[in-house]
Amino acid sequence: MSTQNRCQLLDITREIMRIIEKQKIKEGVLHIFCPHTTAAVTVNENYDPSVQSDISKTLSKLIPHHAHYAHTEGNADAHIKAAVMGSSRTLFIHNGTIAFGSWQGIYFCEFDGPRTREVWVKVLKE
Amino acid sequence: MSTQNRCQLLDITREIMRIIEKQKIKEGVLHIFCPHTTAAVTVNENYDPSVQSDISKTLSKLIPHHAHYAHTEGNADAHIKAAVMGSSRTLFIHNGTIAFGSWQGIYFCEFDGPRTREVWVKVLKE
Amino acid sequence: MSTQNRCQLLDITREIMRIIEKQKIKEGVLHIFCPHTTAAVTVNENYDPSVQSDISKTLSKLIPHHAHYAHTEGNADAHIKAAVMGSSRTLFIHNGTIAFGSWQGIYFCEFDGPRTREVWVKVLKE
Repeated sequence: MSTQNRCQLLDITREIMRIIEKQKIKEGVLHIFCPHTTAAVTVNENYDPSVQSDISKTLSKLIPHHAHYAHTEGNADAHIKAAVMGSSRTLFIHNGTIAFGSWQGIYFCEFDGPRTREVWVKVLKE
Repeated sequence: MSTQNRCQLLDITREIMRIIEKQKIKEGVLHIFCPHTTAAVTVNENYDPSVQSDISKTLSKLIPHHAHYAHTEGNADAHIKAAVMGSSRTLFIHNGTIAFGSWQGIYFCEFDGPRTREVWVKVLKE
Repeated sequence: MSTQNRCQLLDITREIMRIIEKQKIKEGVLHIFCPHTTAAVTVNENYDPSVQSDISKTLSKLIPHHAHYAHTEGNADAHIKAAVMGSSRTLFIHNGTIAFGSWQGIYFCEFDGPRTREVWVKVLKE
C-alpha cells in the first residue's frame, strides 16, 4: 500500500477483511504484523476521521520530529512512535469474519512516509 | 463489567482466570481483546494499587482531557490513550491456568467512563 | 538474562531465533511474553543502536524517574513505561525461522535494572 504523508493513520479494515473472508476460517484468531520499524498497526475508531489525526498529532507533540536524538537519519521520532504504538495486534475471527466492537477499525500508522508499505496477516484456527 | 470513574484501571485477573480454568485447556495461548475504542487492556503490577493510579494519572498528564483536538465528542484523549496502550494482550496458559510472572495481573483500562464494558477472551491450544 | 543499566533496550533476536529454530515448526506464530511489571518487549530497528537509546531516553523524558507518584518504591516510572510499551509481541514463523521485515530485531526493554530477567516464548503451528 502507499501512504501520502509523513505521519498518517490509514484505514486498512476492508483490505484485511477481504483477505480474511477468502480464507474461509469460521472461528479463530487474526494476527496483524507490521514489518517496518517506522510504522505500526492499531485498532481504533473508524467513524470520525478526526480521531486518527488527533492520535497522529498528539504523538508528534509528545515525540517531536526534531529533538536531540542520537539517530542521525532524521526519523528517530518515527522509530519511537512505532515502538510506543506496537508492531502487532490480535483480533478474533467469528462466523468467518473479523469480530469488531462497535466503531472499531484497523489502522496502519505511518510515521515516516510517504512510502510503499506492507502489512502481514495470519489466521489461526481455533 | 461496570467502571466507576472516567479514567481507571480495573483488575480483571480473577474473572478471566475463572473463564480460562473452565475451558480445561492444559497448554496454550490466551488472547484478550478490548472491543471499545476508548478503553484498553494491560498486564501490570497487581500488588500495590497505587501503580494503577500512577499509570492512569501519568497518561492524563501527557494526553490531557481538554486540548485542541479535532474530534468534538470530548473524548479524543480517551481514543489516543487507548491507541497507545493497545487493544490486545497475549498471555500463556500452563497447567490449565494463566502463567503469570510474580506480581502480574490483568487490567481493563477505562479512559471514558463510567460505562458498561466488555472484554473478549479466546484460548488456543498448543 | 542480565541487564546492565536502569533503562536499556537489549537485543534478544539471536537468542530467540536459536530457540525457535530448534522447535522445527515450519509455519506458525511466535508469541513473546515479558513476565515482569517493570520491563517490556518490543520489535524495532536492529541496525543503528542509537535508535534504542533514543527510545529509552525519550520515554524517560516523558515519564521521569522522579515525579509525584503514589507508588513509593521509586520505580513507578518503570511500571508506567512497561504498560505503555506492552508485555507481549507476536511475530510470524516462515520456513522454520522468524519472518522479519528489513532492519527488525526483538528487544527486551529494561526500565528498572540492572536485574536478572526472563522472556517467555511460545510457538503455535499454523
